[in-house]
Amino acid sequence: MKTGDAPDTSLELSGDQLRELVELAMKHIAAHIDSLPDQPAWNSNGCSESAALARSVIEPLPEHGQAAEHIIGNLFQRLIPCSYNTASPGYLAYVPGGGLPVAAVADLIADAVNRYVGVWIAAPALAQIEATVIRWFCDLVGYPSQAGGWLTTGGSLANWSAIVTARRCRLPDDFLSATLYTSDQAHHSVTKAAMLAGFPSENVRKIEVDATFRVRVEWMADQIAADRAAGFTPFAIIGHAGTVHTGAVDDLQALADLAARENLWLHVDAAYGGFFMLTDRGRLAMKGIERADSITLDPHKGLFLPYGTGCLVVRDREHLRRAHTLDADYMPSMQDDPEFVDFCQISPELSRDFRGLRVWLPLKLHGIGPFRRNLDEKLDLARWAVDELRKLNGELNTESGDELEIIGEPQLSIVAFRLRRRGLDEPSLTRLNEELRTRINASRRVFLTPTTLHGRYVIRICVLSFRTHHDRMQECLNEIRRQTKLL
Amino acid sequence: MKTGDAPDTSLELSGDQLRELVELAMKHIAAHIDSLPDQPAWNSNGCSESAALARSVIEPLPEHGQAAEHIIGNLFQRLIPCSYNTASPGYLAYVPGGGLPVAAVADLIADAVNRYVGVWIAAPALAQIEATVIRWFCDLVGYPSQAGGWLTTGGSLANWSAIVTARRCRLPDDFLSATLYTSDQAHHSVTKAAMLAGFPSENVRKIEVDATFRVRVEWMADQIAADRAAGFTPFAIIGHAGTVHTGAVDDLQALADLAARENLWLHVDAAYGGFFMLTDRGRLAMKGIERADSITLDPHKGLFLPYGTGCLVVRDREHLRRAHTLDADYMPSMQDDPEFVDFCQISPELSRDFRGLRVWLPLKLHGIGPFRRNLDEKLDLARWAVDELRKLNGELNTESGDELEIIGEPQLSIVAFRLRRRGLDEPSLTRLNEELRTRINASRRVFLTPTTLHGRYVIRICVLSFRTHHDRMQECLNEIRRQTKLL
Repeated sequence: MKTGDAPDTSLELSGDQLRELVELAMKHIAAHIDSLPDQPAWNSNGCSESAALARSVIEPLPEHGQAAEHIIGNLFQRLIPCSYNTASPGYLAYVPGGGLPVAAVADLIADAVNRYVGVWIAAPALAQIEATVIRWFCDLVGYPSQAGGWLTTGGSLANWSAIVTARRCRLPDDFLSATLYTSDQAHHSVTKAAMLAGFPSENVRKIEVDATFRVRVEWMADQIAADRAAGFTPFAIIGHAGTVHTGAVDDLQALADLAARENLWLHVDAAYGGFFMLTDRGRLAMKGIERADSITLDPHKGLFLPYGTGCLVVRDREHLRRAHTLDADYMPSMQDDPEFVDFCQISPELSRDFRGLRVWLPLKLHGIGPFRRNLDEKLDLARWAVDELRKLNGELNTESGDELEIIGEPQLSIVAFRLRRRGLDEPSLTRLNEELRTRINASRRVFLTPTTLHGRYVIRICVLSFRTHHDRMQECLNEIRRQTKLL
Repeated sequence: MKTGDAPDTSLELSGDQLRELVELAMKHIAAHIDSLPDQPAWNSNGCSESAALARSVIEPLPEHGQAAEHIIGNLFQRLIPCSYNTASPGYLAYVPGGGLPVAAVADLIADAVNRYVGVWIAAPALAQIEATVIRWFCDLVGYPSQAGGWLTTGGSLANWSAIVTARRCRLPDDFLSATLYTSDQAHHSVTKAAMLAGFPSENVRKIEVDATFRVRVEWMADQIAADRAAGFTPFAIIGHAGTVHTGAVDDLQALADLAARENLWLHVDAAYGGFFMLTDRGRLAMKGIERADSITLDPHKGLFLPYGTGCLVVRDREHLRRAHTLDADYMPSMQDDPEFVDFCQISPELSRDFRGLRVWLPLKLHGIGPFRRNLDEKLDLARWAVDELRKLNGELNTESGDELEIIGEPQLSIVAFRLRRRGLDEPSLTRLNEELRTRINASRRVFLTPTTLHGRYVIRICVLSFRTHHDRMQECLNEIRRQTKLL
């Protein structure tokens, strides 16, 4: 590294050298954060420029170091801006989160001190920081004291870990006749998790939903009965607390009743919706979630953390232990005090970064209050957007029969809608709405993405970034109004 | 957060506020890094103090934020120091790495801009940064252009992903008769990975090793034949390029020949040893690794990165795609240009932090030269330590018949040894060496951990931190000399 007189054989930075490098990075980061409200909400469209930019970082492994000014400057000036601006207040696509700045400081610290937290004894208080975070999440969902969990990189590995844990605790070695039950609105990671866990993909039964996009529990019960009669082994139900399509929350009480009746493992994928449990409305919608055997949460969604932080919580920590414990000669001694936990014994990993800090530090510095108020605000904004879309119908062209259709009332913070026009068949409606969405996004003040609901092309507004407030939602609705009238 | 006039409802920090917080963290980080040579190599012994310290971070989720000065000060002054000092130059335990400071800056940037790299189109150049890192690793191990891979959190998930990929590409839905072959020196994550992937644990055959701790390939062949005759389906071999016990490297050419002959998938766990491929000696030891179907590498070991960065590379990227691709209605369009890759299609995750930067930035700023020289230095240091231990034998008490036994010559950078004393049985030798290790560690200038090799308690020196140089190894040998003579 070409800083000062550091010899080329050393990889160490002195405190001052590191400070200098951090200051360089911070110059760009501070400018980036301060300009976020004015940055486009997306800036990447698969054009030849994207490909050329991607190609610009294809090179052989360099033998010699290059100047930090150039590398980091290029990153911020050229490479980062060509992207979906997931940090922008106008990013209303997929499931946003924003990326709390405090979490970046936590990772700076965690990496710099590089402590090992896979085994309690190696860093007791730091392992406990992660355990404390897990306990906060267990409290949030109403889990008892014997609950436990681990921080994953996201919802996909949390869903996978839940299914593997259930499989190892509930099924014999020969588990291939076991069947899983979820809705046709399931996140694709549910099927993927089952496949990776060793289940044939056709063993994942996707049950139809009702008009509110909640799984039809009675139909699920019928399918379970039919499967039992056909020689299958019904084994697990995967409910959703906030589908990624519409934010629909399954009737968790009914699913828990069914799971209890049939002696099945109940997992709830609450990656998107889980942290709304911080609000009164969220708790009401997710009533019964505490009866689930395991729950996926995504702090990088509802706690606004940067990507890379998911979580699995399990109502009985012994289930995780049974699924993951394995001894090895070279490993340090494990905790026998039930008060503490060795994460390598309740999760798939042995090496483990000090990832708890990324969640803990923001919650300690901000307190949970602002998170709760932010989530309440997002629920309000979704409700407000639906009301505005309805009002807009009064202004539309009655001759062509244009009408904005709200696809299900928002159950959390996702609004799904489409423009209907008299006489158009589905393919034409798809083209019309694709055109509408393209025009709305063309402002680059907002970025909306579509989904398909039972064959219908639908536009989604997902408001979940801590940076999105009423002003940007107003801009979003203004753009929808303007483009709908022009179309 | 109680900084300036930021309202309690906001989670945003201005650039200046973030800079202030980073400066506070950097004050502590710089002092931490500069004092590393003088810090104890370990400081955590399961005493009541550790428990009390861990208990001090058990509290309910706080409603209100607290001052950063206090929280971060407490972290550095009280919580972090009570730990195995994995960042210390004297940390010669397990498999060290140290934790490159530049990587911490990379995570600061990655978190702050929070871009999404699971799908190429969402951030083409940033996804390509990860792909470029993967390509560098593929080049390192001698893989062809169609190779691919992904960055995991460590070796455990890389081994798991390799076994799942092999299972999905090579076996039918009913895979329960399939058997896997590895050595009795296998890392415990190999068996754990097989279990998580759905194989009965008894289907993992642990073949004995020879005197150099390399798996006996001919015995493995015999076991494969016996299994075929008994109706099993031999399916995969897991070789080791550097066991965690002694650093032994299996005869990878012979394993590749056997795998080819028997049509088995060959995976090599090179988590510890892989990056020694940067050196001439490492390439010689790992000859044949390029014939493996998949390889686990751990940048947080041999590339000295902070914990949390592992890697799986696969000789044919199509295998990863076949094992992981699944479509979903709400997902953006994927690349059809084979030049580029959508990571969500070749790995288990959908959400994905911008983790490539953590590897890329250190390699760009330092160049690979200093890494190669560091690894060569570690090989030299292990060789030197063995020579010194042998010399020490001339100084020992001949009356009691004391002798330091080198357990296998170091094949990479691990030295395994024990003190033998005439007339002592194994339990007594274990107590003697446990006492010796305790006394060596009591200096806190070094931290050594033991392992068990075929019933023998053995002390390991694993030199792999970029911060460990001759001076600290000299201290280590001085302490061994002093304590061996006193014992």
